[in-house]
Amino acid sequence: MLKSILLSSILSISLFFTVYANDGYNLWLDYQAIQNAELKSEFKSMMDGIYFFGENPTYQAIKNELNTASEKMLNQTPIYTKERLSSTKVWIGTRDQLSQVLSLTEQGEISSLGPDGFWRGPLVFEGKTYYAIIGNKPVGVLYGVYNLLNSIQTKTFNNSSKVSDSPKVKFRMLNHWDNLDRTVERGYAGFSIWDWHRLPGYVDPRYIDYARANASIGINAVSLTNVNANALILTTDFMKKAKVLADIFRPYGIKVFLTARFSAPIQIGGLETADPLDPNVKDFWKEKTDEIYSFIPDFGGFLVKANSEGQPGPHEYKRNHAEGANMLADALSPHGGLLIWRAFVYSFEEDQDRHKQANFEFEPLDGKFRENVIIQVKNGAIDFQPREPFHPLFGAINETNIGMEFQITQEYLGQATQLVYLAPMWEEVLKTRIYRPNPSSTVASLLEGKETTQKNTLMAGVSNIGTDRNWTGHLFGQANWFAFGKQAWNPEITSEEIATEWIKLTFGQNPDMVSKISKIMLESHETAVDYMTPLGLHHIMGRSHHYGPGPWVVGGRADWTAPYYHQADSLGIGFDRTRSGSDALGQYAPEIVEAWSDPKQIPEKYLLWFHHVPWDFKLKNGNTLWEGIAYHYDKGVKDVREMQEIWASLESEIDPEEFDHVRQLLEIQEEEAEWWRNACLLYFQTFSNRPFPSDIEQPEGDLEYYKSLMFPNAPGI
Amino acid sequence: MLKSILLSSILSISLFFTVYANDGYNLWLDYQAIQNAELKSEFKSMMDGIYFFGENPTYQAIKNELNTASEKMLNQTPIYTKERLSSTKVWIGTRDQLSQVLSLTEQGEISSLGPDGFWRGPLVFEGKTYYAIIGNKPVGVLYGVYNLLNSIQTKTFNNSSKVSDSPKVKFRMLNHWDNLDRTVERGYAGFSIWDWHRLPGYVDPRYIDYARANASIGINAVSLTNVNANALILTTDFMKKAKVLADIFRPYGIKVFLTARFSAPIQIGGLETADPLDPNVKDFWKEKTDEIYSFIPDFGGFLVKANSEGQPGPHEYKRNHAEGANMLADALSPHGGLLIWRAFVYSFEEDQDRHKQANFEFEPLDGKFRENVIIQVKNGAIDFQPREPFHPLFGAINETNIGMEFQITQEYLGQATQLVYLAPMWEEVLKTRIYRPNPSSTVASLLEGKETTQKNTLMAGVSNIGTDRNWTGHLFGQANWFAFGKQAWNPEITSEEIATEWIKLTFGQNPDMVSKISKIMLESHETAVDYMTPLGLHHIMGRSHHYGPGPWVVGGRADWTAPYYHQADSLGIGFDRTRSGSDALGQYAPEIVEAWSDPKQIPEKYLLWFHHVPWDFKLKNGNTLWEGIAYHYDKGVKDVREMQEIWASLESEIDPEEFDHVRQLLEIQEEEAEWWRNACLLYFQTFSNRPFPSDIEQPEGDLEYYKSLMFPNAPGI
Repeated sequence: MLKSILLSSILSISLFFTVYANDGYNLWLDYQAIQNAELKSEFKSMMDGIYFFGENPTYQAIKNELNTASEKMLNQTPIYTKERLSSTKVWIGTRDQLSQVLSLTEQGEISSLGPDGFWRGPLVFEGKTYYAIIGNKPVGVLYGVYNLLNSIQTKTFNNSSKVSDSPKVKFRMLNHWDNLDRTVERGYAGFSIWDWHRLPGYVDPRYIDYARANASIGINAVSLTNVNANALILTTDFMKKAKVLADIFRPYGIKVFLTARFSAPIQIGGLETADPLDPNVKDFWKEKTDEIYSFIPDFGGFLVKANSEGQPGPHEYKRNHAEGANMLADALSPHGGLLIWRAFVYSFEEDQDRHKQANFEFEPLDGKFRENVIIQVKNGAIDFQPREPFHPLFGAINETNIGMEFQITQEYLGQATQLVYLAPMWEEVLKTRIYRPNPSSTVASLLEGKETTQKNTLMAGVSNIGTDRNWTGHLFGQANWFAFGKQAWNPEITSEEIATEWIKLTFGQNPDMVSKISKIMLESHETAVDYMTPLGLHHIMGRSHHYGPGPWVVGGRADWTAPYYHQADSLGIGFDRTRSGSDALGQYAPEIVEAWSDPKQIPEKYLLWFHHVPWDFKLKNGNTLWEGIAYHYDKGVKDVREMQEIWASLESEIDPEEFDHVRQLLEIQEEEAEWWRNACLLYFQTFSNRPFPSDIEQPEGDLEYYKSLMFPNAPGI
Repeated sequence: MLKSILLSSILSISLFFTVYANDGYNLWLDYQAIQNAELKSEFKSMMDGIYFFGENPTYQAIKNELNTASEKMLNQTPIYTKERLSSTKVWIGTRDQLSQVLSLTEQGEISSLGPDGFWRGPLVFEGKTYYAIIGNKPVGVLYGVYNLLNSIQTKTFNNSSKVSDSPKVKFRMLNHWDNLDRTVERGYAGFSIWDWHRLPGYVDPRYIDYARANASIGINAVSLTNVNANALILTTDFMKKAKVLADIFRPYGIKVFLTARFSAPIQIGGLETADPLDPNVKDFWKEKTDEIYSFIPDFGGFLVKANSEGQPGPHEYKRNHAEGANMLADALSPHGGLLIWRAFVYSFEEDQDRHKQANFEFEPLDGKFRENVIIQVKNGAIDFQPREPFHPLFGAINETNIGMEFQITQEYLGQATQLVYLAPMWEEVLKTRIYRPNPSSTVASLLEGKETTQKNTLMAGVSNIGTDRNWTGHLFGQANWFAFGKQAWNPEITSEEIATEWIKLTFGQNPDMVSKISKIMLESHETAVDYMTPLGLHHIMGRSHHYGPGPWVVGGRADWTAPYYHQADSLGIGFDRTRSGSDALGQYAPEIVEAWSDPKQIPEKYLLWFHHVPWDFKLKNGNTLWEGIAYHYDKGVKDVREMQEIWASLESEIDPEEFDHVRQLLEIQEEEAEWWRNACLLYFQTFSNRPFPSDIEQPEGDLEYYKSLMFPNAPGI
């Protein structure tokens, strides 16, 4: 299966460019020297006279960013003027600070942008035109500056036009699943960037670059530790360490959250119970929370995974999720902290259909959570599969704050080696019409707080960041981090817009190159679905590490096996979640139940998610289901080869180190796609007992060989 | 104990220099632009006409290195001429290739340098002078080129003088204690640089830079995996991965070794025994070895830890070390492979004195090992303590190949946070006179093969390399990697010479700066011994992770506790290893027994290593032992503060990122030195019942507090 590689060619390429090549560390803030003379002179003149209407740590961060950008793009240091007139070209400050020079209309316009919004553009004062960057708060100003620098980098800057923007979601958050020993659960980019051992004494410069990258795409919250939590993070020693990170992130508008292990009162508090209604437990959490705020006055709050996959929670004490969450929320409330409670729950008792568990547990509790609680819901009801229909909890609870949890790290989508741009998948979910609470509701409109009275809106993404030099392991993993920030800021943005912007920031402006890379990116998710889990298949990957195909995985609890999900037998394949089956479909709005109950009507991408369908079932294009499955797997492999061809055509355009990095990984992706196709088709053929269509590349290899493969040291466990 | 840090100052420094600062990745191959006009013009003229007398992968590596060096130092690409005359300035080739242009005398001179030696200097041919770099083999040429580039960087180049050199030790080897899951046992610089999961398909450019760095200091062998071995490394999948690394390292003259788990025949061979005399076991190893050589034709061989700390070995089958080692050696022998067998053995049955175990097991086997076996012996008999007397096995076995194992990674010498330059410690061991087999023998002369008929000479160092951007975690850890290579090449070199060279390559030429940093480095080991384990104390660090002091550690097997080693009681302190005690001293040569048996005569640095001494014992300076211990601990702390002052005085000379990196770590080192002093003195005072000398900084804090400290996530376990 694994092809031998032409090592000599790799060597000669890599050796030659060791020194000057781009290793990807700078992300989308690479600030390449400006070639366009007009733009250069325009930007140069701006950097020649910058006036700040005040002083604070965020403005210091802005200055540092302007220094970096100006030195790299212009090879000069900006000049900061001491007074706001004379030679000044650029004004930077908050609406309050600039009130003397703003009209009431302008003030109103800016004010309406809210705390994180910004306004930038020409401002005429006493007959002279200045270029102003204004926010309601310093962090808005920071966002405005990053937006300006972005426009210079992407050559979309126009000094006569006004630009304003503000986020549609309040908390735009990264969830690190980082353990205290620096392993990262589902991490494929090395290890945790948090060097806990050397904190608080040693500050890795990378922490600052991390904050810069996040702020530049609007991310304003980060939980540092794994949701499978270690109570030690709540000890005083670790608070001192977390405080250093919080101090670094604060000027960048980023709040620190920690994960709270529900049993911490027992593990580090010396109590014999973690019962949320026990007064000593309440006191423990109150004191613990007060102590955290003594180190981090603007601490964000806790993120909690409880009663899920073996994590402790209120159920041990016969309390429900609301009782558990509210107890913690009450400890945070005096400090303005937030309690984020995950809806990804399933107990160790097996359920009839895991799909139904979250709604089953949370719908009855709607309205019972404190105002400072947000229920964080994965995009789908199973577990970040290559494609999932939206989670039925969206729209089902409407008197409770609800937030989104996407997974940026590619646990089920290629892990360390595959180019899969996730924004189209997230866009698909966000734009889905969910019919509840209002007929026009979408996942996005719900998350933005438009459909309910919800004020604390949240979009969280499970980080794909690690110690690898380029942060994300695969260079294109950077695009997923970038896209997550952009979609959290504006859930209605298109994934194409984001791709174009990221490509320009990463590779440059050549329109032909931009359109080719954009094609690769925009088709990559569908391609991965094709060679992994087409037509609604799901959860058929290798056990535990989730690397590669494992449709044969059995043993242990049923809902951790593949046949539980694909239900293949001699008659057909798919999980019947209609009324004749588990009726998980019944948890959706009636309009959706209506549309998806009929296997002939349901979008085919969800077919086997909701229906057990005969092998000879006719698809819309006339193929049988068996043929359709085979064609999808085959197309997935062929589309990877097309990605390779497109990439190869760009060799002269791309930095050699980056080019070779992606070229090598695409070669691995081709091998892995073939492996998925061969293994899955050979396996499902043992049920279908039908030949493969003759016009596909015939799956090769031996099913027993594929089943025998073991990856005991696969990363991310 | 831990001081608060001035975060704001750290932030402002770090933020400002994020972009242009030196992150240490380039090690001693930074190739800064040449400022000196004369040197620049000289080097430029050389790079204008280079002729290679042939083609091979090593010459390609040389070209790549010259390209890099020339581009960085001169901002120009070298010109390679097509013929050896005309505009050619530099000749590069082997003695054979240059035989037509070399006199017989010159040929003889070069020939005597052996396979790794090089000769460089002016060569007159047909009336014209060329600059020639010549080796007997391509790797010698490579060493000559690195030596030339080094002389340019350190400004010691003289184009009219002839320089030749050759290594005194045949195998100069790094031992990586890297696990297949990328954790590194006793690693403090992040995680393993071997990305096994993405091999063989993905070649990290770092592998090449690793090979360059090693070749540039003469390292020519590397074992990739932990001596606490995982048998999986011997499966076909992993061989394919290791093959890629071997292919990359080969042009740089570096051979790959793997660690062999003695029980592999059971774990991956399907056998029920690993008995070295069992024919099936022999066949397993023969086939396994043949398979490795089919992937890596110049595979170096195996490194084995057997019957030590729970590792399997021949003792399970009532076979001795020679029977175990020879069986593996016989499998390797047809391919020219080497079997390196570690002498760091101690069984799970506790011995009277662990110090004696290696001699006890290996002396009776002297002469019984195959010619392609080397016994690899740690520098001391316990375990890489801050200071140990040389291992009594050196000189005790003389009909068996014996090699040195130093530890470059700072398991007991400051781990992730302390500046401790190890070369003086190694130099101390290497230069020790051991009186066996010949009266003038030293550890160095023995290792060089001068004292016996040994041909396969070896110096191994346990690597301190990891994924941290600067490779070694602490910038000064680079100096230890560098020094190891230099001392392995020439065990008689002084640590001061090495320090000077490294400082110039790393920080620059300013003589005042060089002498200040040299002072810091040369005193740092004695300083660490002072604040950790003065006067021969040893093995009193924290349990398991070995981080920080733990003289109170008890429980479990006796020789894993601290009191076993320090033997403190109300009368005195120290381990009696003389005839009245364990008589481990009796394992040394009679001259040493004689000199060290008397506590009044033994060098005080070894006093408590060999003697249990009363608290009021008079030291040579008139202090009592108790006072002496206190003064040493106190001096250690004060000397760290002096290091800090010297470093602070260099701020204007040093790259800001590097400066701040070391400044922060020195602050942590000061805290850790105070912690060691306070904890150890307060603890030992509970035995001595004597006051501290009034003129030392009085140990502060509470012994119970120090004993309570836990570091469950300390790195390197």
